[in-house]
This record gives sequence, C-alpha cells and structure tokens, in this order.
Amino acid sequence: MSLSDVILGRPLASKEAEKEELTVVTGVPVLGLDALASTAYGPEAALTVLMLLGVAGLQYLPWITLVIVAKLLTLYFSYRQTQAAYPNGGGAYLVAKDNLGMNAGLCAGVALLLDYLLNVAVAISAGVGAVVSAIPALYPHTLSLCLIVLFTLLIVNLRGVRETGMTFVVPVFVFIASIAFVLGVGLIRAWSSGGQPDPVVPPPPLPPPRAEPSTWLLLTAFANGLTAMTGIEATSNAVALFREPKVKNAHRTLTVIMLILSVFLLGIGFLCPAYQIAAMNEREPGYQTILSQLVAAVSGRGSFYYVALASIFIVLTCSAQTSFADFPRVCRLLAGDRFLPPAFARRGRRLVFSHGIVVLAILAGALLVIFRGITDALIPLFAVGALTAFLFSQAGMVVHWLRRRHDRSARTSLFYNALGAVTTSIALVIVVIAKFTEGAWMVVIVGPAAAIVLQRIRRHYEKIGREIDVPLALAKPPAQRPIAIVPIESWNRPAEKALRFSLLLSDTVIAVHVDIKQDGGARLKELWGDKVEQPARAANLSAPRLEILESPYRKVYEPIVDFVQKTSRQAPSRLVTVILPDLAEPRWYEALLHNVFGAALKTLLYLRAGEYVVVVYVPWYLRDV
Amino acid sequence: MSLSDVILGRPLASKEAEKEELTVVTGVPVLGLDALASTAYGPEAALTVLMLLGVAGLQYLPWITLVIVAKLLTLYFSYRQTQAAYPNGGGAYLVAKDNLGMNAGLCAGVALLLDYLLNVAVAISAGVGAVVSAIPALYPHTLSLCLIVLFTLLIVNLRGVRETGMTFVVPVFVFIASIAFVLGVGLIRAWSSGGQPDPVVPPPPLPPPRAEPSTWLLLTAFANGLTAMTGIEATSNAVALFREPKVKNAHRTLTVIMLILSVFLLGIGFLCPAYQIAAMNEREPGYQTILSQLVAAVSGRGSFYYVALASIFIVLTCSAQTSFADFPRVCRLLAGDRFLPPAFARRGRRLVFSHGIVVLAILAGALLVIFRGITDALIPLFAVGALTAFLFSQAGMVVHWLRRRHDRSARTSLFYNALGAVTTSIALVIVVIAKFTEGAWMVVIVGPAAAIVLQRIRRHYEKIGREIDVPLALAKPPAQRPIAIVPIESWNRPAEKALRFSLLLSDTVIAVHVDIKQDGGARLKELWGDKVEQPARAANLSAPRLEILESPYRKVYEPIVDFVQKTSRQAPSRLVTVILPDLAEPRWYEALLHNVFGAALKTLLYLRAGEYVVVVYVPWYLRDV
Repeated sequence: MSLSDVILGRPLASKEAEKEELTVVTGVPVLGLDALASTAYGPEAALTVLMLLGVAGLQYLPWITLVIVAKLLTLYFSYRQTQAAYPNGGGAYLVAKDNLGMNAGLCAGVALLLDYLLNVAVAISAGVGAVVSAIPALYPHTLSLCLIVLFTLLIVNLRGVRETGMTFVVPVFVFIASIAFVLGVGLIRAWSSGGQPDPVVPPPPLPPPRAEPSTWLLLTAFANGLTAMTGIEATSNAVALFREPKVKNAHRTLTVIMLILSVFLLGIGFLCPAYQIAAMNEREPGYQTILSQLVAAVSGRGSFYYVALASIFIVLTCSAQTSFADFPRVCRLLAGDRFLPPAFARRGRRLVFSHGIVVLAILAGALLVIFRGITDALIPLFAVGALTAFLFSQAGMVVHWLRRRHDRSARTSLFYNALGAVTTSIALVIVVIAKFTEGAWMVVIVGPAAAIVLQRIRRHYEKIGREIDVPLALAKPPAQRPIAIVPIESWNRPAEKALRFSLLLSDTVIAVHVDIKQDGGARLKELWGDKVEQPARAANLSAPRLEILESPYRKVYEPIVDFVQKTSRQAPSRLVTVILPDLAEPRWYEALLHNVFGAALKTLLYLRAGEYVVVVYVPWYLRDV
Repeated sequence: MSLSDVILGRPLASKEAEKEELTVVTGVPVLGLDALASTAYGPEAALTVLMLLGVAGLQYLPWITLVIVAKLLTLYFSYRQTQAAYPNGGGAYLVAKDNLGMNAGLCAGVALLLDYLLNVAVAISAGVGAVVSAIPALYPHTLSLCLIVLFTLLIVNLRGVRETGMTFVVPVFVFIASIAFVLGVGLIRAWSSGGQPDPVVPPPPLPPPRAEPSTWLLLTAFANGLTAMTGIEATSNAVALFREPKVKNAHRTLTVIMLILSVFLLGIGFLCPAYQIAAMNEREPGYQTILSQLVAAVSGRGSFYYVALASIFIVLTCSAQTSFADFPRVCRLLAGDRFLPPAFARRGRRLVFSHGIVVLAILAGALLVIFRGITDALIPLFAVGALTAFLFSQAGMVVHWLRRRHDRSARTSLFYNALGAVTTSIALVIVVIAKFTEGAWMVVIVGPAAAIVLQRIRRHYEKIGREIDVPLALAKPPAQRPIAIVPIESWNRPAEKALRFSLLLSDTVIAVHVDIKQDGGARLKELWGDKVEQPARAANLSAPRLEILESPYRKVYEPIVDFVQKTSRQAPSRLVTVILPDLAEPRWYEALLHNVFGAALKTLLYLRAGEYVVVVYVPWYLRDV
C-alpha cells in the first residue's frame, strides 16, 4: 500500500459511483446546512457595522434583520419556481446558460465559483471564530487554525466523501436544537423581565459610539447582513436528489429551511439588543462571536455552552465542505463547455474531481492568509459573489417564464422570480457601493477578469478543435532523412548518448556549443577529433560536425534557436530535429535542478523555430548512488 | 526596441564590465550606508521593548545604548584585523570557508543570505515608516508602499546599477548632516535647559507602564537594539575597492563610520529620554518613528523636517539596495562551489546576476507581506541572521590567527578577533533566547534547513559530475531500429504528424490509446484501417498497430508508462522511443493549457521506464488565427 493510498484511500473504479435519495428530514440538514450556517456570521456582520453607533446601534438590529428576512422571503418564492421548472437541477450556471445564453452562463458560473470559494473562507474563519471564542488562549493562532481546518477538508475531499449528506445530519440537528434552545430560553427571559433579562455571563462592555446614525450606515449594515441568506440557493440545484414526489419534497424542505433560518435571524436580531450584546473587534485578543456571547448570556459557560459552540464550529466546517463538493462540480460543468481545461472534468482516483478541489483549497488558503482569517474582512467579497450568482439565476428564470408567458401559472412564477431578481439587484447595488472600498472592488475586478480568461480559454479550445480535428489519412514520410542538431555543454556521457541516438536518425549531425565562457570551446574542439570524428568514421558513419556559437551577451538559448532557424531555412524541405542530452533523475525533485534548460529551449523552439522542428530528449539515467 | 529593452535596458556585452576606486570620502557613504542606516531602526527597536516600562523605560535607553556601542567597538577592532588579513575581500563566506572549512563556509553563506534578505525587508519597512511618519495619511498603505519600493529596487537592479557607489554619496551626506544637526541642536538645548528641553513639536504622550523592570526585559531590549550594528561588516569585504594604500584607506573609512555611528546612537539614546520620546505602536494609525519625533521636537515640522525625513527614507532604501548588490554576489560564490544551480553564477543581460536578484525580491516580498511591513516584527529575525554572519566571520579569523600564532602581531589580532567572536556569541545567545518566540525561531529553523538543502544540492552536482563527466569515445549506434510508441487521444492532425515522424525512425510503430471514456476506443478503431493502415501499406511501410489500453481507475499516464515498460522488457536490446504529438502555441501562455500532459508523461517515463527510453516531441504548429 503506497503512502498516497493511506492518505487518499485506495483508487475507486469508475463503476463504483452510487446514488442516494433525500427526504425532507434528511434534506433539511443536507441542503439547509449552508443557509443555517449563515446565522453564525450574517447577523454579526450587520452588527459589526452598527457598533459604530455604540449602544444606539443595537436598537437598529431587529429592523435590519426584518428587512433581510423580507428579502429572504422573495428569494424563497423565487427559488420555489426554479425548483418546479428545473426538477433535474437548476443551478445558476444551468439556468443562466439555458435562458440567457452561453456568456451569461459563464458569468453565472464565475459568480458561483467566487461564491463557493468565499463560502469556504468565511465558513472556516467564522468556525474558527467560534473556537477562539470558546477557548480564548487559541486566539493568537486564528490563522493557523483556519489553515489546519482547510487542509483537513482538502484531504477529506481528495479521499472523496461518499456519505456526504448523511454525516451532516447529526451535527446540524444538534446545532438547530442548541440555537433553538438558546433563543427560546432567551426570549422567554426577555419577555418575563420586560425586555431587560439578566445575563448569566454578562457580555463584554459595549464600545463607545464613533459615528452618527445615517441612512448610509444602515445600508452598509444591511449589505453586510445579507450574507445571512447565502446558501439558500442550494435546494434549487438538488430536486433530482429527492425521493418521489421530488418537487413536492424539495418544496417542503425549502420551506422548513426558510422557516428555521428566519426564526433564527429574528431571534438573534431581537436578543442581541435585549442582552446588550455587541459585535467585538475580531482583530483584538479576547474576541468572541455574538453567538458565543449570546449562548453564554443565556445559559452560562457550562457544558451546554461548549456543546453549542462545538456544533456551530462543526456546522460551519460542514458548510465549507459543501462548497468543496459544489465548486468542483461547477468546474466540471465549465470544463464540459470547454471554459476550463479538460482535466477539470476528469474524476480523480477516488471518483472526485480532484483538480477543482485542489484549486479551491489553494485559492481559499490564499484568501485566508491575505485576510488573516478575519471573517469581517471577507464578508463584503462574499456578499457580492453570492448576490451575483442569485441574480443570474433569477434573471434566467425571468426569461424562462417570459418565454412561457401565455401559460397562466407561468405568470405567477414570473412575478415571484422578477421580484426576486429586482430585490437582488437592489441589494447587489447597495453592497457594491457600500462595501466597494472594503473589498467588494476585488470581486468587481476579479469576477469579470476571470470570465474573460475563461471565455478566451473556450475560444482557444474551439480554435484548436477546428484546426486539428481533421481525420485525414496518414501521409508519406519525407524521403530525405532529417538534420540533427545536438546542443552540448561539454563532452560527457549524456552528450555521447544523444549524439549516438542522432546518428540513428540522421546522416547530417551537427553538435552546437554556446560559448558562454568566451574561450572558443577550446576543450571541446580538442576532444572532437579523437572522441567523435574518428570513432564515427571507423563505424562508417558521416562524422558529426561541431559548431561553436558565439554569445557576447551570455545568452544561453537564443544562439541555439537562431542556429536552428538558420539551418531550417537553408534546407526548407528537410525536417530539423533538435536532440537534447537530458538527465533522468531517480527522484523527481532532483529534476528541478536540471531540466529547466531542456524545457525552456523546447518552448523557445516552438515559439520561434518554425514548422519543421522536432524536439527529442535523450535521457541519461543517473544511478541512485 | 523590445519592451524588455525599455524596462531593463539594452543588453550589455561581457566586455563592458568596469571598475572604480574608493577614497575615504566616497568610502564612508558607499560602505557606511548600511551601518548608518541602522540608526533609523536600531535604537527604536530597543526603545520599543523599554516602552513596556512606560516613562521609566526611557531612562534605561542611554545605558543600553552604551552597551551596544561597547559591543560595536569590539566589532570595530575585530573587522580591522579582517581588513588587514584579507585585502582582496574578506566576506564572512570566504573567511569561514578559508579557515573553518567548506561546511562552515556554507553556514556563513546561508547566514549572510538571511542577513541580506532581512536587511532588505527591514530597511524598506523602516524607510516606509519614515514616509508614513511624515505623511500620516499614507499609514493605511504601509504594505503597498513597501512593495512598491521593493518592486522599484527589483527593476533598478535588473537594469544593473553601474554607478552604485557614487549615487549614494549625496543622500548619505544629507542624512549625516541632518541627523548631526538635529542631535547637535538637541544636545545644546538639553544642556542649556538642564536636561529638560522644550520640544518645538511635542511628541505624543507616553504610554502607561505595562511591566516591571527586570534583567530579562533589559536583555530583550539590548537584543533588539543590536540591529543598530548591522551593516558594519561591509568594509571588511571591500578593501580591494579602495585606492592605494588600500588597507590604510579601508581602516580610516571604517574608523570614520564607527565614529559617526557611535555618536548617532549615543545622541539618540540620550535625547529620547530628554525629550520624552517614546517608541509608538507600528500597528496603529498615527505611528511615527522616533527619529521623526526627534526631528520634529528639535526643529519643528517645517521644511527641514521633510528634508531630514526624506534623507532617512532614501538612505534606508539605498541600504536595501546594497543588499540587492550583495545577495546575488554571495549566491554566485555559493553557485561557484556548486551549492546552488549554475544559473546563479551567470550574469544576466545587464551584467548583473539576475537570478539572485529575482530570488531576493521574491523572498523579501514574502517577508513584507507576512509581516505586513512592520519593522518591529522583522527585527528579531534580522538580529539573528546578522549576528550569525558576524560570528562565522570572526570565528574564522580566530582560526586564521591561531595558525599564525608564532607571529607576534598575529597575537594582538587574535585577541581582538577572539574578543569580537566571544561578545558576538554572547549577543547571539541573548537574541535567540530573548526573541525566540517572536520570530527568532524561524531563523533558527530556516537557516540550518537551507544549509542542509544547499549541502545536498552540492552533493548532487558532485555525484552527477563524477558520473557523467567522462570524455569517452562515441560508441556505435545499435544495429536494430528503435520501437516507436505513439500515445494518441484521437485521430487528428498532430497524431498524424507524430505517426508520420515515427515511420521515419522505426519499422515497429505502435499507437496507444488510453480508454478513459470506457468505450473501447471505438471511433479510433473504426478510422484505423482506412486512415492509417491502408496509406502505410500503399507507401510500402509496415503499418502502425493500434493498442487500446484499459484504465478502470481513469489514470491517464500509468497505462502508457506500463505499456512502455512492458515493451522495453520484451525487447531489451532495442531502444524504445515514445513519440508525443504536441501542440506548439503561437503564444507562450497558451502552452499552459496543453503541455502539462507531455511534460508529466516524460517525467514519469524518466522515473519509471528505464534506460532504453527516448522521448520525442513532434509539435503541431497552431496558426495564429
């Protein structure tokens, strides 16, 4: 069993792919995970902005939460329509491509990729936020913890998570139960104390106000808080996974998720001011998430507190996990339409799309490092990515229903989807403007740039396809033997082997030496007669010629490329083969020390030397001494 | 003129290298630059630790400065001996290698590389610290400014700085004059006011004490302050650059530098408590360096303030510049002894060692990003790197004199070098222990790790040298023609061209297709007879055979490598050539989309397929449509 077998698990054959069916009970945790996990960072994101107003800011939280829940409702009705219209899965990519065309699909795809990427980063950093709230001593290691979680997810996903859904069920139910319990007890206490409950563990003191209330500030808080609705789209893509009646089960699941999410958001929005819980500065030691403060205020810091915080951490980690499942799937769809190299459409050893997983992990790692694992810094990027994906999906649905507008039921659906699209675009505009300088600009630049790159990749593959996919008949090889050019640095074993091979292929062999040391290749010239010409003549072969190439500017490659070009031009009908002496190392990392030369020369020859050049690597195998 | 000519300057021929000679007047700015620039961060580094004691901490600064100056004196006498003993340049690498052996030389070399690397990072961050002190609005852009300075230095150095020394003269003299003026005026006012001068611009209020005085804290402050002596070693390596009498001129230059540096350090050490100037927290907006506060306190924030701060910034930037000259030189020395790939010993288009420059810029950039351009965070790493380099140099000198101990004058030199070595090792131990958790551990890990890697690189090159550098006579090529294996994905133009080439080389051509799609290669089989076998027979060639290779685990490379291995084993006397259809793209970045397959297959073949395999790339040239 190899090391990679131990770490990644044994390879799975293509036949071993399986399926499973969801019910409402399993559907809520599996598909609601992301949406419910958003409660752990959405309200906090809104509150962080409101804290600029000091204690006064707390009073705005319930109202902002109400607006967010209203917006959430429009999404709910909108996605119900999508579920009904696309029972085989209506992800934003598919819906946009189907209704708005390939380019819109591409944009939706890119938005989705950004959405998933940022979901990974935000979920991990918020999850680690829960951990450092519970164990303050870990605060200085926030970033390291984030990267450990990310690396674990990477390995788990490269192994492949076959039981994906079901493993989520228990922690999600524990999470739902804990939060429901905290909110329930908290609300009862708040009610019985006339809105001023006594906290079991008092939250840290509120910061002093640093700004005056303004519409702008409230809009910004709303923009941040919108991240509370991310993940709600998951059900729209998953109708096919449900037990029959699929659409009905999917609808019910969405309804339950929506209800829980709304109750949680409103509960948090009401209890934070009641318990005087403020969003703390994540960049300072002693940081606690508002959920940590809330649980501690309601139930104290006993064992229940730790169970609740652990369930928050696990649910957030699982939420990152779902992006690890979805990001590669979108990559596969894009690769299927040639927006990405075909490798993204290939399943790896464990039947997962390994390339997408690795790319996601690298990008998420970079985000976490750049933003130091600070959730608050990632929120603006996340909001833009998610809302853009929502928008494309809903705009696609609007067009979908417009095409069917003669149908009466389609008009109702059209209304809901249009409502969703309009409110989403308003929200998107608010987020982009309010959060532009705080990171939203990155998404605004990276998104379109990525779309353009992907677009060009597709064009490139299409062009190549047109050009090379011609099943023409095999032509006759040329009558004349090729000219062989062998670049050598000195006369050693690899050079000898390469020259020997070239005699097999050609009767015109030219060894070329670039004179970097400015000594005219004296040593080589000295050896040439004895060691090369004489044995060649003795074997009745035409002797290889030695050319010393000048290089006054110490260039290594150009003189060779120029010589190849010249030779090729002088004998236009003959193939020119460049035969490179190469070192084959027993260990791959050793190759890094040598093989740069061959690879660079090949690239330059391809770029500049013209059609008649073939590159041959003759490896000299180093013994593993 | 190409773009790279505009940015990097026209290539310089090897003959265009030049020389220049230093006098004491030019030697002080050129070689004293680094040492004098240290005044901008050394005292501040010590004071940062002392500020934990609040206002009481200020009183310790003069005493700590005194100890640092005393340590500096031992270095002064020590390096005088080195100058005399190594008039052709006695850098730490050379001295350690010469006297302590190759391995010690390697360790000294690594220490020097770390020293130069950290000098770049610290000098840039401290220089930007001066900028944001003068223009507080720039504070949020600290890191960006650091990276801009770094990038500018990278470009300047890739262009090559031929007038290196002389460009430093003016800013260094302005710097010396400004600081001397500030210290002079400050000291006179302090004296005339009985030690309580009135500041023109009062410095920000002192922070409250957060710790009790302890030996430990004072040692830590001393450890940080030791960075004030970095750069003093520069003269030891530069005797050869001086006008005759070289050693005498070098001695005088070192003396002048030492005097200025000592006076500056003592002046700052005395004036900070007199003016109640505290080190501020670099991580908070409003940050000002102590030099900025000092200049403002003595002369106000008029135009003189801005000239002085500008000269500090320029001198610090130039100090980073000198590392850009020295780092590649040490790389070249290491590459000369085969500790690094030969590319590091090659001069680039502008006669500079481009590889070393680029590596330095990348590493310094990484450090600046990781530490967010905070000088204080880089100081512990810098102190360890610099002191280690000092230690190797002086230990080497001790051995140097021990070998000549029969000579009387050698004994005096031995004493000074031994004194330097002992005080340096004490200082090094203090720094490592006091700053271990604050970053010194990185150097303690990275240094030896780098030394081990470089050691292994050297062994590897030596092994290869032994194995391949045999000027044996050209052997006769094998009588039998090779077997050709052509991996193809589908039957298209590149596949046709590769097959055609293989017919030129071999009479046993086997096309192999990996059946990833699990369709048994149906389409290929269908075309084979018509498009390949028939034309081949018509041309009187043996028809290429088609092999479909199964791949139940969707592996792309392994089935091909296995097949090559099998074929090679079945015909052990014949060469096996693997002929890869390849795409040559008109633009290099497009190659990234395709050429992974060929490169990966070649690597695997080298690693696993044995001696008799040659790899041929037959490029299909895509038109630039």
